[in-house]
Amino acid sequence: MDTPSSKTSTTHAVGELREWLGERLSTAPAVREQHGKDQTWNPGAPPDAVAFVKSTEEVQRIVATCAKHGTPVIPYGTGTSLEGHFSAPFGGISVDLSGMNRILEVNAADLDCRVEAGVTRKQLNAHLRDQGLFFPVDPGADASIGGMTATRASGTNAVRYGTMRENVLNVTAVMANGEVIRTGSRARKSSAGYDLTRLLVGSEGTLGVITEVALKLYGIPEAIVSAVCPFPSVEACCNATITAIQMGIPVARIELVDAEHVKAFNAYSKLDLRVTPTLFLEFHGTDASAREQAETFAAIAEEQGGGPYSMATKEEDRQKLWQARHDAFWATRSLMPGKEAFATDVCVPISRLAECVTQTQADLAANGLYGPIVGHVGDGNFHVVLYCDRQDADEVRRVKEVYGRMIERAIAMGGTSTGEHGIGTGKRAYLEREHGGALAFMREIKRAFDPKNIMNPGKSAAL
Amino acid sequence: MDTPSSKTSTTHAVGELREWLGERLSTAPAVREQHGKDQTWNPGAPPDAVAFVKSTEEVQRIVATCAKHGTPVIPYGTGTSLEGHFSAPFGGISVDLSGMNRILEVNAADLDCRVEAGVTRKQLNAHLRDQGLFFPVDPGADASIGGMTATRASGTNAVRYGTMRENVLNVTAVMANGEVIRTGSRARKSSAGYDLTRLLVGSEGTLGVITEVALKLYGIPEAIVSAVCPFPSVEACCNATITAIQMGIPVARIELVDAEHVKAFNAYSKLDLRVTPTLFLEFHGTDASAREQAETFAAIAEEQGGGPYSMATKEEDRQKLWQARHDAFWATRSLMPGKEAFATDVCVPISRLAECVTQTQADLAANGLYGPIVGHVGDGNFHVVLYCDRQDADEVRRVKEVYGRMIERAIAMGGTSTGEHGIGTGKRAYLEREHGGALAFMREIKRAFDPKNIMNPGKSAAL
Repeated sequence: MDTPSSKTSTTHAVGELREWLGERLSTAPAVREQHGKDQTWNPGAPPDAVAFVKSTEEVQRIVATCAKHGTPVIPYGTGTSLEGHFSAPFGGISVDLSGMNRILEVNAADLDCRVEAGVTRKQLNAHLRDQGLFFPVDPGADASIGGMTATRASGTNAVRYGTMRENVLNVTAVMANGEVIRTGSRARKSSAGYDLTRLLVGSEGTLGVITEVALKLYGIPEAIVSAVCPFPSVEACCNATITAIQMGIPVARIELVDAEHVKAFNAYSKLDLRVTPTLFLEFHGTDASAREQAETFAAIAEEQGGGPYSMATKEEDRQKLWQARHDAFWATRSLMPGKEAFATDVCVPISRLAECVTQTQADLAANGLYGPIVGHVGDGNFHVVLYCDRQDADEVRRVKEVYGRMIERAIAMGGTSTGEHGIGTGKRAYLEREHGGALAFMREIKRAFDPKNIMNPGKSAAL
Repeated sequence: MDTPSSKTSTTHAVGELREWLGERLSTAPAVREQHGKDQTWNPGAPPDAVAFVKSTEEVQRIVATCAKHGTPVIPYGTGTSLEGHFSAPFGGISVDLSGMNRILEVNAADLDCRVEAGVTRKQLNAHLRDQGLFFPVDPGADASIGGMTATRASGTNAVRYGTMRENVLNVTAVMANGEVIRTGSRARKSSAGYDLTRLLVGSEGTLGVITEVALKLYGIPEAIVSAVCPFPSVEACCNATITAIQMGIPVARIELVDAEHVKAFNAYSKLDLRVTPTLFLEFHGTDASAREQAETFAAIAEEQGGGPYSMATKEEDRQKLWQARHDAFWATRSLMPGKEAFATDVCVPISRLAECVTQTQADLAANGLYGPIVGHVGDGNFHVVLYCDRQDADEVRRVKEVYGRMIERAIAMGGTSTGEHGIGTGKRAYLEREHGGALAFMREIKRAFDPKNIMNPGKSAAL
């Protein structure tokens, strides 16, 4: 693959783009900085310019210009990704898609919609609410649908509704050669040819710039029941989860928070929860079926020594409960002034989850680190929020080592280095470790689609 | 891409393979014929030899030998595919994987398993039953898991449980260069790199030979309720389905059979159903929730003028009902002695389904053709069983024209040329029509993975 662009060629590209984009091409240092550095410890690098685009055709023209000059193209949505996805280690043009925020169609009868890539999930759900519909994938941040698609995002609802992998019907993308393709139809299923949709989902901007996304939608459930249940151990939480899923309870959310997190919730959200590993749950259905699910889970929890089990059906009570879960990051952060928080992300087969979590906790303790844990346990996915003083070189080293072992542990248990955050620049070292010889085939695809390596170079499987 | 092999090079390949495979390499005409022609109107072509393999390593050695000689490699499972997938238009070696039929592991806690490609779905389900587990994808035929993976199969349960796309965790495949790759971990979700699993699912043997498949499993539901409901029209069936899905009823099966089919059922299965478009349904859940789903659907059906609605909860009654549905093909065939039946397959957004079905029915009538219809209506997928006298050139022409218009109609309505049967040799003409410029990117992948075009040439996106 070619090496990325020289400064001179990028200067030419910037000049050409400015001619027709005018003020919508920015080279202001603050804008470039903001488009090159995420909130994590991944080193950022500013792009040479940021293009604020309005249409697929504009993206197409930018990519064609960049292709001519061999200049990198880096897609940018809301800047909420966590693995350096939008940094520009080789310079180039950041394509800011936030202005492409039109909801193009909602087909209520088909439970699908088509949106521009810059639409955020909250914007979409606000738009859908009156029609009794919602889009379930919820990565926490109010990310753009394009960014969520590119990173194969998921979140708390994935155990029932799936991730972006399951919920994208097709995408429109501008490819490295400047061509615009649409990767599929609106049919719910198809056996016609290779699954380019799933290939672009999770490709992190390295195979094309996603400009439109067709999504599956769902009817807002008639009833939602939330519940909280303390357990004697992480293992008991996991065992209850395994039983529930084996029994086919269609639990909508099942979130583990460890004792450290509960302590932080109590302080931050003025709650009075018992300081022990706890499951936050949500059940969707009819009045009767949501309640039946919740009650069945109560019985399962009791068998694992869990309880007391508290249910909330009122919107207000449910909101309060989930607000605490959503504030987890801020809650623990308030306990660690002066330290930075680093998000981590692994996913293992659920039968190994308790073991993976407890070994990680032991490693944290042995290294004197504070790392509260949250887990989307129904999927076997968990995050340690690693707190670290960036000025303390030894602590930084310990944090990195503990995280490295956590990833190795997950892979060794049949899991993955990232359940939902992606590879970006941050986890490239683990791609080969996880995929072995299969990585070469990812690289073949990259080379075939983008021989000049202009699409988000340095991320995921791109060189 | 290179043109496929010459006869001489294939002769060399056959000679080399015979040396170590011995009697497990057959060149017997009957064996070759059976491995080159499916049950449909797609023209078959026998391979030069059939290799009966026992392991991934053997497949690897065969592919390496074929690669050396530029000889085509055609995977074969149970021979139940419907679009000429295993014919050998350029000759070559048919790799019969039916002897790779070991169930390698079942992880009950993780609800997953790993099987060799030749395991059939009925074999797997028989093995799982005692553990209270099942694998839901049901394409009708007792197909091999490898073949179902390669064709992205689905069937009656897909509306609730998804297709092979959603239910394959990862595959082991022998690639054209002789390398063996595994496309992912056992984690339920991952954002690590490109989705090679989904790329191989549905690739019809053109990108690699799938030798092992890891699958998601499900707990056998506590209760199953079946139901049958006649409707005044296909449109009423579709409207009831749309409402049920919008309301989030997790219906497990929802199958449309048209009046022609009902007539045939009554004659063949000694039933007494009203001769009108009818839905066959199945609901899975707890006793209470399955019954609640069934009763909610009854109310929906009534609003559409449907009924009387009959439910069956006893295993025996349910089996009888679904046996009639499964015997649909034989039922209609018995009414058409001397004619051949051709399976068709399109899928549209559900809001267009009634229109697509009724326009197709009108086209059949206008052309004097008998074509009863069954549909997996929850997915917008339907099949016309087209009856045709192969000796009647004019009827053959009309059948082909009606089917061509049916596919064009489906694509124009935002649907796909095949919901679950695949492209094979039969639908290659529609790949470009459906995918436009995206097809070129499928071809790029094919070229990158298999520059000599030895993997199942002439199928799907392979040249």
